[in-house]
Amino acid sequence: MQLKARLLNIQAGGMRIAILDDETASSLGAHSSDRVRISYKHESLTAILNIASDFPADHVGLYEEISKKIQIADGENVEVEPSEPPEALRHIQAKIRGERLRQNEIEVIVRDVVERHLSDIELASLVTALFINGLSMDEIEALSRAMVKTGKTLNLDKGPILDKHSVGGVPGDKTSMLVVPIIAAAGFTIPKTSSRAVTSSAGTADRVEVLCPVNLTVEEMTEVVRKTNGCMAWGGALELAPADDLFIQVEYPLAIDPLLLPSIMSKKKAIGATHVIIDIPTGRGAKIKTIGEAQDLAKDFIDLGKRLGMKVNCAVSFGEQPVGNTIGPALEAREALSAIMGKGPLDLVEKATSIAGMLLEMVDVQDGKRKAQDIIKSGKAERKLREIIGAQGGDPDVMPEDVGIGSERGEIVADRDGEILWISNEDIARIAKEAGAPKEKGAGVLLRTKLGEHVRNGEAVFEVYAERSSRLEAAIEMANSLKPIGLGGKPGERMIIERIPTEIERRKAFVLER
Amino acid sequence: MQLKARLLNIQAGGMRIAILDDETASSLGAHSSDRVRISYKHESLTAILNIASDFPADHVGLYEEISKKIQIADGENVEVEPSEPPEALRHIQAKIRGERLRQNEIEVIVRDVVERHLSDIELASLVTALFINGLSMDEIEALSRAMVKTGKTLNLDKGPILDKHSVGGVPGDKTSMLVVPIIAAAGFTIPKTSSRAVTSSAGTADRVEVLCPVNLTVEEMTEVVRKTNGCMAWGGALELAPADDLFIQVEYPLAIDPLLLPSIMSKKKAIGATHVIIDIPTGRGAKIKTIGEAQDLAKDFIDLGKRLGMKVNCAVSFGEQPVGNTIGPALEAREALSAIMGKGPLDLVEKATSIAGMLLEMVDVQDGKRKAQDIIKSGKAERKLREIIGAQGGDPDVMPEDVGIGSERGEIVADRDGEILWISNEDIARIAKEAGAPKEKGAGVLLRTKLGEHVRNGEAVFEVYAERSSRLEAAIEMANSLKPIGLGGKPGERMIIERIPTEIERRKAFVLER
Repeated sequence: MQLKARLLNIQAGGMRIAILDDETASSLGAHSSDRVRISYKHESLTAILNIASDFPADHVGLYEEISKKIQIADGENVEVEPSEPPEALRHIQAKIRGERLRQNEIEVIVRDVVERHLSDIELASLVTALFINGLSMDEIEALSRAMVKTGKTLNLDKGPILDKHSVGGVPGDKTSMLVVPIIAAAGFTIPKTSSRAVTSSAGTADRVEVLCPVNLTVEEMTEVVRKTNGCMAWGGALELAPADDLFIQVEYPLAIDPLLLPSIMSKKKAIGATHVIIDIPTGRGAKIKTIGEAQDLAKDFIDLGKRLGMKVNCAVSFGEQPVGNTIGPALEAREALSAIMGKGPLDLVEKATSIAGMLLEMVDVQDGKRKAQDIIKSGKAERKLREIIGAQGGDPDVMPEDVGIGSERGEIVADRDGEILWISNEDIARIAKEAGAPKEKGAGVLLRTKLGEHVRNGEAVFEVYAERSSRLEAAIEMANSLKPIGLGGKPGERMIIERIPTEIERRKAFVLER
Repeated sequence: MQLKARLLNIQAGGMRIAILDDETASSLGAHSSDRVRISYKHESLTAILNIASDFPADHVGLYEEISKKIQIADGENVEVEPSEPPEALRHIQAKIRGERLRQNEIEVIVRDVVERHLSDIELASLVTALFINGLSMDEIEALSRAMVKTGKTLNLDKGPILDKHSVGGVPGDKTSMLVVPIIAAAGFTIPKTSSRAVTSSAGTADRVEVLCPVNLTVEEMTEVVRKTNGCMAWGGALELAPADDLFIQVEYPLAIDPLLLPSIMSKKKAIGATHVIIDIPTGRGAKIKTIGEAQDLAKDFIDLGKRLGMKVNCAVSFGEQPVGNTIGPALEAREALSAIMGKGPLDLVEKATSIAGMLLEMVDVQDGKRKAQDIIKSGKAERKLREIIGAQGGDPDVMPEDVGIGSERGEIVADRDGEILWISNEDIARIAKEAGAPKEKGAGVLLRTKLGEHVRNGEAVFEVYAERSSRLEAAIEMANSLKPIGLGGKPGERMIIERIPTEIERRKAFVLER
C-alpha cells in the first residue's frame, strides 16, 4: 500500500519502528508488533509496526532509524506491505518450549538480533526463556561464535595474546589498571577492552578515561598495542560482539543475566585472546555468593575456553568488600596510579600481582607472582602504564595528586568503638552513584577503614566526594540511612545486627557488570 | 530535573513513554526502560523511559498517552525524576525464578498491568515465564479474580445467567448466533459477549456486526438484555477484564497463550454468569488436538468455575473442519440467519441445538436438545434473533439474501474424482483472510463440499468471495498453492498424500482466539 512518510524525528534506540493508524494497519491485515516491509526507491527494509489510533490514515510514521537508512524526506510516498516474521522467531518459540537449539538456529537468532529484526517483546521473551530453560554448553558455544561472527575482530598477527576479565560485582575493582601494564612490561601482549558502568559506580573504561581517552577504533587500538604491548580501551566503541549490547538492553530491566558466559568469552575471542584469566569475586555481597557456585562457573568458563580455542584459568577472589579504598572513577584512577608507583593499598596490589602472576605462569614464566611484584618494584610497571596512557592520548607524566576529585567532601563517623564486621558492596556503590558517579567522575567514596580494622567512636569510617553540594548532601543522607558498614565488638558481644521495622524498603539489587 | 515538554503527537498503544537524550538520562542516573516520574502542576504519573541520542538535552519527549493525561502543552516546563520500578516487577522476577505467586502478588501485577506501569519487555517476560513455568490453579483463580476486579462488571439483578464460550480454533463457527436466541427464547437470560478476530478470519462480533451494531456500552447491553433476555455484544468496548487485552498484545507476537483459562473465565464472571458451557473444538487442525487434552482442559474449566462460583459444563466438539459451509463475516451471518430459519446446514444446527440443550439441562430443563430443536422449528428462535437484532439497532426484518457478500467470486475445482479426506482449517482461514476477511466483511470462503462427500473431476470444491478483484486473485492463487482440501479414493487407494520438496515454507500457525 502506498503511504506518505511522516518523519517523527525521534530515535527508538536503534529499533526500526513504523507507526500506522489502526484502521490502516488492519486493512493491511497487520497487528501491533507485526513486521512490515518498507520500500522507497531502491531501498527496502523490515520494520516493526506500532499501532496508533487517530494517526493520519494515509501516512506511515517513521522513526529516524528508518528514515535515515532509506534516505526519505517528510511527505514522500513509500510502499508499505505486510512481511513474514523473521526466521529467528521460530527458534525463539522452540526455546520457549524448552527445546535445544542447533548451531545454525542460534546463528539465525543472533543475525536477526544484530540486524534489529526482533522487537523488544521477542528479545525479552528469548532472554527469559534462556534464563528459565537454561543453555547447554553446545548452545553457549554456538552463541559465542555467532556473536563473534556478527562483530568486528582484532587481528594482531602474533601470539600469545593474554587477557583477563572479571565477572564483576565488587565496587572499586581497578585490578586491570595494574595487570595490563605488568603483563605488557613483561613483554607479553594484552589488548584489554573494558566496559563502562551499567549498574555500578564505575567500569574500568570509566576509570581509565580519567587518565586518557578510551574510545579507540580497532585501528587505533592495534596501533597502541603495537607500540606498547597493551592497551585499555572501551569495548563499546569497537563493535566486538555487538549482539551482546542489544541483549543487555533487555536483560537490565528484567534483572536477569543468562548470557554471562557467551557475553564475556565472545569478546575475548574477538580480540584473538589465547590465554585468559577470569576473575570471579566471591562472597556475601558479591555476584557469586559461595565457593561452590564460583567453582561451577569456573568449570564452565574453562570448558567454553577449550571449545573456542582459548586456554582459560579462573581466580576465585575475595569479594566481600571493595577492592582498595576508593570507589568512583577519579578516586580509583588516582589510587591505581599510586598503587603502581609502589604506594599500596595492600589488597589491590596483592590481587593484581596474583592475577598477573597466574597469567605469566600460563605462558610458562616461572614464579609469576614474584615476577609481577618485581615489575612493580622496579618501576617497569609504572613506566609501562605511562607509555600506554601516552599512546592513548593522555598525559604520560600525570601524578596522583593531579587527578581532580570532587571538591565537595563529607565524612561518615563511627557512633561507637568497634571492629568493622562487614561492608555492604551494594550500599557503598549506591552511595557513590548518589554522589554522582560514574557520570561525575570526581564523585565517589573513600574508605578510611576496611574489614577487621578497629575504629574509635567519632573516628571517620569513610568519606564521600561529590562535584556538587546537592549531590553530596543526598549521598550523605543516603549513607546515614543505609549504614553500609557494620561495626561490632568481639564476636558474640553484639548479636542483634539490625531491627527490622514493620515496613522494610525492598529494592532491586542486580549487578549486570561483566 | 526541570525539562521542557516536547509533545510527539503520537500514541504508543496506551503505553506511557517518555523520551530523553542519552546524556540527560545518564545525568538522571536513568537507563532505557527505567521508570521516570513526570510531574506537571497537580498531575503526576510514572512513565517508561526511552533513550534517544541527539534529542534536545533540555527537553523530554512525551507520547500522547502522557501529554493528554497531565494536560500539558508543547514547550511547558515539567519535572522529571527517576522513579522506583513498580512493585509488580519483583513478583514477575519471582515467577521467572519459578516461584508460585500469592494472591496479593498477582493482584499487584494485574493492577500494574492495567495502570500501564509495565513495559513491553516486562510484560513479554511475564507471559513467557507464565507459559514456561506454568500456573497453579490457585494462581489461575487469583488472576481471574484480579482481572475481574480491575474491570467493569454487568449487574443484572436476576438469575440464573447463562453463557457459552468456545476456546476457538475452528473457522466458520457461528454457533453462538443460534445458541443465544434459542436460550433467550426459552425464557432464560444470556448476555453474550464476543471478541473480534485476532488471528482468525472472523470473530463472532465480526459476524454479528453484519446484522446489527455490536459496540454496546454496559448500559446499552443491560437495556438490550432487559428487553430480549439476550444480546450479542463486542466484549472489547465493555472494559470487562481489560488486563486481558493488554496480555493479548504481547501473547500474539510470541504466539503463546498461557492465560486461556483466566482470560475466558474472568469475562464470564464479569457479566455475572452462573451457568456456562465451554465448547472445546477438538481434532487435527483445531487448537486442541486430542480428546485427552480436551478432557484435561475441561477439568480445569470446571474446577476454575467452582472456585469462581459458576457451574461449568464442557462440550468437546468435532473440530476437524469448519462449522457450516461459510467462512467470513457476511457469508457466516447469512448462513446463521438461514440456519435459524430452518434451512440448515446440518452440522451447524446440530452443534447449536446440542450446546443450547446442554445449557437448558444445566438449569433443569428436561430433554434440552429436543427443546432447542423445537424452539428453532417453531420459529421462536428466529423471532428472538430478530428481536435482538432490532434491540441492538439493526434491521429486524433482514433476510439472508439481503446480506451483501463480495461481488468478486472464484471457484476452486477438483482435479480428479474422489472423497474429501481432509479440510485444513488453517489454510481455509488463511485464504479467507487473503480475500479480505474479517476487515472486508463480504470476503470469505464458501465450502461446496465437506468431509466424506464425493466430488467429480472439474466440480467446484469451494468458492472464494472478495470485495476487490485484486484480493480475489491473491486468494485464488493462495488456494491453488495451499491445496486446503485433500481428495482421496477408497482408503488405501492413494497412500502418498504429499511430496515434500527440499525447501518447505514453514509458517507461524497460531490461533489466539478465545
